[in-house]
Amino acid sequence: MTRIGFIGLGIMGGPMAANLVAAGYEVTGYNRSSAKAEKLAAEGGKAAGSIAEAVSGADVIVTMLPDSPDVESAVLGEDGVLANARQGALLIDCSTIRPEVSREVAEQAERQGVRALDAPVSGGEQGAIDGALSIMVGGDAAAFAAAGEVLDVVGRTVVHVGPAGSGQTVKAANQLIVAGNIALVAEALVFLEKHGVDTESAFRVLGGGLAGSKVLDAKNEGMRERTFEPGFRIELHHKDLGIVQSAAREAGVSAPLSGLLAQLMEAAVVQGDGSLDHSGLFKQLAKLNGME
Amino acid sequence: MTRIGFIGLGIMGGPMAANLVAAGYEVTGYNRSSAKAEKLAAEGGKAAGSIAEAVSGADVIVTMLPDSPDVESAVLGEDGVLANARQGALLIDCSTIRPEVSREVAEQAERQGVRALDAPVSGGEQGAIDGALSIMVGGDAAAFAAAGEVLDVVGRTVVHVGPAGSGQTVKAANQLIVAGNIALVAEALVFLEKHGVDTESAFRVLGGGLAGSKVLDAKNEGMRERTFEPGFRIELHHKDLGIVQSAAREAGVSAPLSGLLAQLMEAAVVQGDGSLDHSGLFKQLAKLNGME
Repeated sequence: MTRIGFIGLGIMGGPMAANLVAAGYEVTGYNRSSAKAEKLAAEGGKAAGSIAEAVSGADVIVTMLPDSPDVESAVLGEDGVLANARQGALLIDCSTIRPEVSREVAEQAERQGVRALDAPVSGGEQGAIDGALSIMVGGDAAAFAAAGEVLDVVGRTVVHVGPAGSGQTVKAANQLIVAGNIALVAEALVFLEKHGVDTESAFRVLGGGLAGSKVLDAKNEGMRERTFEPGFRIELHHKDLGIVQSAAREAGVSAPLSGLLAQLMEAAVVQGDGSLDHSGLFKQLAKLNGME
Repeated sequence: MTRIGFIGLGIMGGPMAANLVAAGYEVTGYNRSSAKAEKLAAEGGKAAGSIAEAVSGADVIVTMLPDSPDVESAVLGEDGVLANARQGALLIDCSTIRPEVSREVAEQAERQGVRALDAPVSGGEQGAIDGALSIMVGGDAAAFAAAGEVLDVVGRTVVHVGPAGSGQTVKAANQLIVAGNIALVAEALVFLEKHGVDTESAFRVLGGGLAGSKVLDAKNEGMRERTFEPGFRIELHHKDLGIVQSAAREAGVSAPLSGLLAQLMEAAVVQGDGSLDHSGLFKQLAKLNGME
C-alpha cells in the first residue's frame, strides 16, 4: 500500500489530502498550525508533529505550500523533506513557485536518491474539493508515470509538459493569461460604463463571440456589482506575477503585457486590496478613471 | 413585402445580403465594384448602379462598409442614403465605425424622417455565411423592434445595448478584449518556447482552466505553427483599436491595456503584416524576443 506524507494542509492542501484518504491511501499530514493536521486525522488520515514524522515512512510525499521560501525551507531545510525521505521516494511539489527553485529541488532530490516533480495546480478551492484540478507537471517521464495514480485522485486534467521546472513555467503562463483576461474585462467594463451602455446586455453579446473567455463568464457579474469576495486573492496573484517576471528575466523574455499587469496588481496590493478576489483588479482601472 | 436596399457587398455584406434574399426579401444591392452586385443578382437579388437606385424604394436599408469615412460618404453624402431614402425608412448600419459617427448618422437621419440603428457585427466571414453573427445594436427601442425580423436573418445573438452609438461602443470593447486575448496567448507562447516547454501540452492544460478563452482555442495552434492566413486581418483590427482609442479619449477613459495593444498592432501594420490574420500579432512579440 502506498503511504503518502502530505506537507501543507491549507485551503488547497487540506481537501487534496482528504481526497487521497478517501481514495484509500494511508496519508500522514503535517501543517505548521496543528489544527489542520488534526482535521485530517478526523477524516481518516494521521497527524504528524513534524515534517520528519510525516515523510520518513512515505513512498510518496506531496507538498502544497504558499511560496518559494516555504518550499526552500520545508523541502531543502535541515529538518526538511529531503533530509528525512527514504531512498526511492517520490516528491510531488504542488506549490506554485519560481521554476528555478523547482529545478534546485529536483537537483538536490536526485543527489539524495529521491525523484521529484513540480506539479502546480489550477482550479481553486472548489477544484481541490472536487478532485478536479488541472495539474501541470515538470520532471522526468518515469517519475511522471509513477505519480499518475496519486495525481489522478486530485486532478482531472494532468499533463506532463517537460523537464523539471516546466510545470512552474506553464503555471506562470496560466497566471499571466488569467491576470490579463481580468484586466481586459475590467478595462472594457470601465469603457462601457463611461459610455453609458447597458453593461449586462453588453457582456451577454461579448461572451457569445470571439471575446468570450472563462474569466469573462465567471467574473463580469461580480465586477458589474462590485463584489470581490475571494476566490483567489490578489496577494497570491501578485506573488504569481512576480514569478512570471523573474522567470521571464531569467530566460531573457521581453513580456510587455506581463509588465503592465504586474504594475496594476502591485498597485492593488499597495492600496490595501490584497485580500480581495483577483477580479478586484477592476478597482484599479476604476480608480484610474475617478470612478470609485 | 419588405424591400431591402443593401449597400456594401464585400466579404461580410455579400453573404448577409444573400441570406436576406434566401429568407424571401426583395434585396437590391449596390457595391462600388459592380461585379459583387451582379453576383447578388445571380443569387436572386437585384443589382443597382447607384446608392440612389438601391435605396429609393426600400423599406429597410442595410449598410456594411469598411470604415467611418465610407459611411460618412455613402450615408451622409450628396447622393447618399439619406438624400434618397423615403420617409419612414429604417437604416441599419452594420459597419464598425466610431460611435460619434453613428450618433451623427442617427441625428441626420432623424431630421430626414429616417430611423437609424448602429448594428456592428462579430463572427467573421463564416458567421456571415451561416447567418450566425453576434449583433450589438444601438438606437431607440422602437427602431430596434422594427429591425428584429431582418437582423434575426443575419444574426444569432442580437442584443439592444443602448442609445445611438452604443452598438459601436460595445463592438469597440469586443475588439479591445479580442486583441488583448491574442496578445496574451502570444506572449505566453513566447514565454513557454523560450523556456523549452512542450507548448502543445501546455496549451491543452491552459485551455482547460481559468485561462481558457475562445481566442486560445481558436488561435494557439496557428501561432505555434506560424500560420496566419486570414480570417480577420490585422489592418482591420488596427483600424478598430483606433476606434477604441478615440472613443476612450472622447469619453475621458484611461485605458492602459488598449494603449499598449494599439502600439503592438501599429507595429504589425508598420512592419508590413497588415494582411495577416490578427493572430499574426504573435510575430511582434516574437520579434521583440529575437525569435523571427
